[in-house]
Order: sequence, then structure tokens, then C-alpha cells
Amino acid sequence: MTQVTNETNTDAASDGIDPGPARGGASAPAQPGALMGAEIAEQPSILASLLTTADAIAEVTEVVRARAPRFVLLAARGTSDHAALYAKYLIETRLGLPAGLASPSTMTLYGSRPDLRDVLFLGVSQSGASPDLVDSLTVAGECGATTVAVTNDPGSALASAAEFSVDVRAGAENAVAATKTYTAELLALYLLLGGSASDAAALPDAAAATLAREDAIPVAAARYRFAERLVTTGRGFGYPTAREAALKLMETSYLSAQAFSTADLLHGPLAMIDSGVPVIAVATPDAGGDAVTPVVSQLRTSGADVLVVGEGQELPVVRDGVPAALAPVLDILPLQRLARQIALDRGENPDRPRGLSKVTHTR
Amino acid sequence: MTQVTNETNTDAASDGIDPGPARGGASAPAQPGALMGAEIAEQPSILASLLTTADAIAEVTEVVRARAPRFVLLAARGTSDHAALYAKYLIETRLGLPAGLASPSTMTLYGSRPDLRDVLFLGVSQSGASPDLVDSLTVAGECGATTVAVTNDPGSALASAAEFSVDVRAGAENAVAATKTYTAELLALYLLLGGSASDAAALPDAAAATLAREDAIPVAAARYRFAERLVTTGRGFGYPTAREAALKLMETSYLSAQAFSTADLLHGPLAMIDSGVPVIAVATPDAGGDAVTPVVSQLRTSGADVLVVGEGQELPVVRDGVPAALAPVLDILPLQRLARQIALDRGENPDRPRGLSKVTHTR
Repeated sequence: MTQVTNETNTDAASDGIDPGPARGGASAPAQPGALMGAEIAEQPSILASLLTTADAIAEVTEVVRARAPRFVLLAARGTSDHAALYAKYLIETRLGLPAGLASPSTMTLYGSRPDLRDVLFLGVSQSGASPDLVDSLTVAGECGATTVAVTNDPGSALASAAEFSVDVRAGAENAVAATKTYTAELLALYLLLGGSASDAAALPDAAAATLAREDAIPVAAARYRFAERLVTTGRGFGYPTAREAALKLMETSYLSAQAFSTADLLHGPLAMIDSGVPVIAVATPDAGGDAVTPVVSQLRTSGADVLVVGEGQELPVVRDGVPAALAPVLDILPLQRLARQIALDRGENPDRPRGLSKVTHTR
Repeated sequence: MTQVTNETNTDAASDGIDPGPARGGASAPAQPGALMGAEIAEQPSILASLLTTADAIAEVTEVVRARAPRFVLLAARGTSDHAALYAKYLIETRLGLPAGLASPSTMTLYGSRPDLRDVLFLGVSQSGASPDLVDSLTVAGECGATTVAVTNDPGSALASAAEFSVDVRAGAENAVAATKTYTAELLALYLLLGGSASDAAALPDAAAATLAREDAIPVAAARYRFAERLVTTGRGFGYPTAREAALKLMETSYLSAQAFSTADLLHGPLAMIDSGVPVIAVATPDAGGDAVTPVVSQLRTSGADVLVVGEGQELPVVRDGVPAALAPVLDILPLQRLARQIALDRGENPDRPRGLSKVTHTR
């Protein structure tokens, strides 16, 4: 394995970030949501710090590009699966390569040994510790793929198993619901897949400006105080955000939140939506967002309650100088805050959702 | 386009099936659920009829095989997306090729023109009429892919746009919730992707025997009479069934049903499951099903209500002589019946879900 960044997570404190009292697995702090709140707030400085390592990530990009992969397979689970979905859109629209999300079970459970010459196999994982991801990346390498791990732990099993690894440098994440590791994965993938640090230069400030619009959060949280079900939707670059928002809401508020591509929403799930099931729609500043607009109108006409996330929308996002392909890094920020606030309003502790642990040992 | 089967849907009546009074777009019959019930019951004879056209499908298989594709992209929406997911597992485990589900928006909305030489692009659609699928398959062909359409209408735009087409011959489907076109798509994909008709010979009888176990349906439907939320889960070949079951329940009963890969279920959605959110688990007769068993135990220990679908289970499936790779064709049958029965118990008409039409015009 060529380890491109050799700093470990424990260096995060040197970024001047105070990640809260529960660092390193100590007991949870007294204040519910303190961990998740602190980790959400850290994101602008983590993004800025990650941009300073863009040259190291670009080295991996160059080596991989030289091998001229023809197809990309992405493997991830949970929150990282949404980062992988973002990567899929980047690969298809910017690199012009077909990409697919791997089904780890075909290699780990069913013993499939596909021909993966000319394939780039990209494993994305916060912990880098999920055994089925490590196994499938290892098998992919044996089957001829170029393997790259994108993790928050350069010493993890996934990073060790991969030929190349990228450290997303988000620092230790102590709240169970992933926030800062998600946006760090998104930016690392943007840089890995041909995006330049100069194009992304405005991102940390835009993230800070978006997080500063916190007045919208309690209003939106109050709206969903007693909701049991909720639908999120987006298209193209808005779809990973819809998926990740639904997962955050499920993890922290125990809401039954379901994400649908806005295209799929018209195919069946629409029957489920009435005035009793609110919808959160993600409006990206691109063709995907444009395709969402008429569906929002259609939903509202049919009596549905729709909240839109985006520039100048009810749940506002500030995009000053940030390219459209980085919209997902910003769009998720108010939704992370919203999930945390709904949980708090309901008397839950979003830092410690019931039944969940940070690393999942799937085989 | 090379049209492999030249019989049209209207030939279905010659199979001796009486699909009910609403054939051909006439008004809905008086009895709610009559259409969906009749179409569910037709499935064994449709599968038997499709097996007789296996040679024509094998011709497409041979032509495609001669081109030695290196990757497969699958494009579909709604129910057909679950058939495409089944195809993905078949391709990876039986053909040893990497496969991915295409994101039509990257080509149709974002104007991506990927290099698709050596790629097999497979469009799956009941109607063959969704404009974004037709557009993405057309663009895929222009980008160098070999294109194959699997549809229930050989005269459809998708079939015309594709280089090769396979007719799933399910006959006109009049209930809005797809049932018989789904299982016909599964079998057509099995035959297209290297499965033999002789291996599948026992399938129609096993489907009939599974449907004959209808005593289990009212009991299970009563269990969910007042449920507002429900989770379905499966792994590997059980996952498409979990996805399709959740969609059927949403379409017909307006239940908030969510499907999770059993591996993903442990990553976050588990927080949502308590004794108030029932789980339906799909137990396939293979490694995927084996991986579901310990999770079912874990869920039950934590107080969750779990119903298992499979051989000898509470929602029974008869598999006599049917290879494991065809399990999804059988596993969905009691779940279709269950979705229909819950809708009827709730006073809804599963034949005509609100807000849905049969062909969705997504762009």
C-alpha cells in the first residue's frame, strides 16, 4: 500500500478544533447532542484543512489516471454509501467513465471472482474497519482491479488492504451519526476524481456561511416535531443528499424517513404521499435541481407539505463561488442540524442513538 | 433493432388466461383487487409460456456473448429496477462480470457521454415507454455500448431504440402495481444471462404450489392491519425481493415500507426498529439467506416483530427442484398477495392506487 498521507486522526486537535469532552471513547458528555453539534460545527475548518492536502490526493489521481481504468466500482455502507453515490455522479459526468456501486455480498458471500482488469475499485469508509468492505476490496485487487481506499483512518484495515489510500483527515468522530466524516469524504472524492483545490477554494467559507443561517433550523424542526414519516427527494447531485438526510433523520430521531430519486418518486412511492407525509426536496444549482422544481409544484398542488433545501430556499444554503459539483457538501449541512434538532426536541440524545455502534461488523 | 420475439402482448389471451373484465384499458371492475388478484394468479402459466421462448432469448445471449462485454450497466425504474438488481447479482455471480445500475440522469440531464465500448447496456422496463430510459439507452448505444431492451412490449420505444430486445410476454397488465411483469422480467433476465430453460423447468409448478399456500396470507395481513411503518430486509438474492415487497406495500397499502440490505440494516436504520416497527425478512436458500438468519435472531431478541418469507417459514415458499438463483421469482409471490390483502383489509383498492398512473413520463 502506498500511504499518501501519513498523519493520523489524532492530529486533528492540532487544527485548533475542540472536538468535545468525549474524545477517544471517553464517556458521553452531560449535554445531549453536544458531540454531534460540535462535529457539525467543525466542518468548515476540516474542509479547509483537507484542501491543504490536495497535492497528496492529486498524486493518487495521477497514478490511477495513468492506468486508464475503463470502469469504476464503488464499495461502501451506510453514510459512506452516499459519499460513494456522489462519487458515481462525479465519475460519470466529469471523468466520462461508467461506474457502479459494488454489491459486496457477491464477492464475500457468493464467492464471485469477476474479471476486474481495467477496473478502479474505490472503497469508502469512515472507520475503514467493516470486514465485508475489507474483504471485497481485497478480492477486487486479486481479480485485477486498481484499489483505492478513502477513509478517516490511514491505519485502518481497508487502507492497508488497498494499493492506494486517501485520508479524509476529519479527526476522531465521536457522535454515532456521521457528519464531518461525510463532508470530508465528499471533498476528498471531489479532489481524487479530478476536481481542483482552487475550484474548491470558496467551499470552507460557504460552509461556514451556510451553518451561520441557523435561524431556519428550529422553525423547520418544530414543523416535524410530531411527524412519524417523512420523504426526502433529489435528483442527480441532489440524490446523495436526500439519501444521507433520510439516514440522519432515522438514526437520530427514529423518524421513518425515506429517500427517493425524484424520478423514481413518480413511479409508485407517490401513492404514499399525502398531506400527512411531509417531503424535503433538495434543489441543487444544476440540471438535477431544475428537474426537481416541477415535481415540488406537483406535490404542493396535491396538498403535500414540501420543504426545499437550497440557495434562497426555506432551508437556506450559501453557495458563493462554489461550483455546482460541490453542492452536496453544502446541502447536507442544514439537514444535519435539522436531524439533531428534531432529536433534541423529542427528548432523544442524537449523540447516542439506541441500538447502534460506530463500527458495524458485517460479513 | 433485431426483434427476437414477434408476438405481441395481445396474444396473452391465447394462453387460456382470463385476466378479468378490465382488459385493454376498460373501466375498473366492481370488485377491488380483482385485477391484481387475477394477474398474481396468472404467473405460473406466464412463466411456463416464457420458458417455451427460451431459444429465442438464447439467440440474444449468444450474439451478446460473442461481443465479449467487459462490464454491464443496467437501467430501470420502479419495479423493473428491482429486476435489474436481480440481474446485477446474476451477472456478478454467474457471468463473473462487474455490473452497475446506471444513473440515467447523468446522461439525460447532465449530458454525460461516457466511453461505453465493451459495455453491455441493459434497459429493463415493463412498458418500454419511460422517456428517460429510452434516452439513456439511445445515448449508451451512441457511446459504443451493446444495447438490449427487456420489456413487456416489443413494439415499445425502448425495444425499438435497442439493438436487441427480449419480450417478457406477460400479457397486458392492468393493475397499476406490477406483479406478473416483474416475475416475467426476472425469468427473462435469468434466461438472457446464461440460465437454461431446463434448469428452470420446475419453476412454474413451484410458483403454483407457492401461490396455493394462501392460508398464510390473511393471518399475516391481519398482523399488519394497523401498522403504519414496516421494514423489509434481505441479502444478496434476497435483497431485490425486499425492495420489491416494500414498493408493493407502499403502492397498494400506503404503508411506509422501507427495504434495507441486511448488511446496511446494522449501520443506522436499526435505531428506527423497535417493537412498533415490524420487519419482514427474506430467507433465500443460499449464502445470502444464511447471512440473514443471525440478524433475524438479533432483531427478535431486541423485541422486534419479524416475519420470515422462505421455505418452511411463516410466509411459505415452495422451491421443489428450483435452483437457488431463481429464488426471487418465488419469494415475491406471497408478498404480492400480502400487499394486496392488506390494502383490501384497509378498504383500499389495490388495483387503482391514488396518484399513480401506469406509465411514468420522467425526463
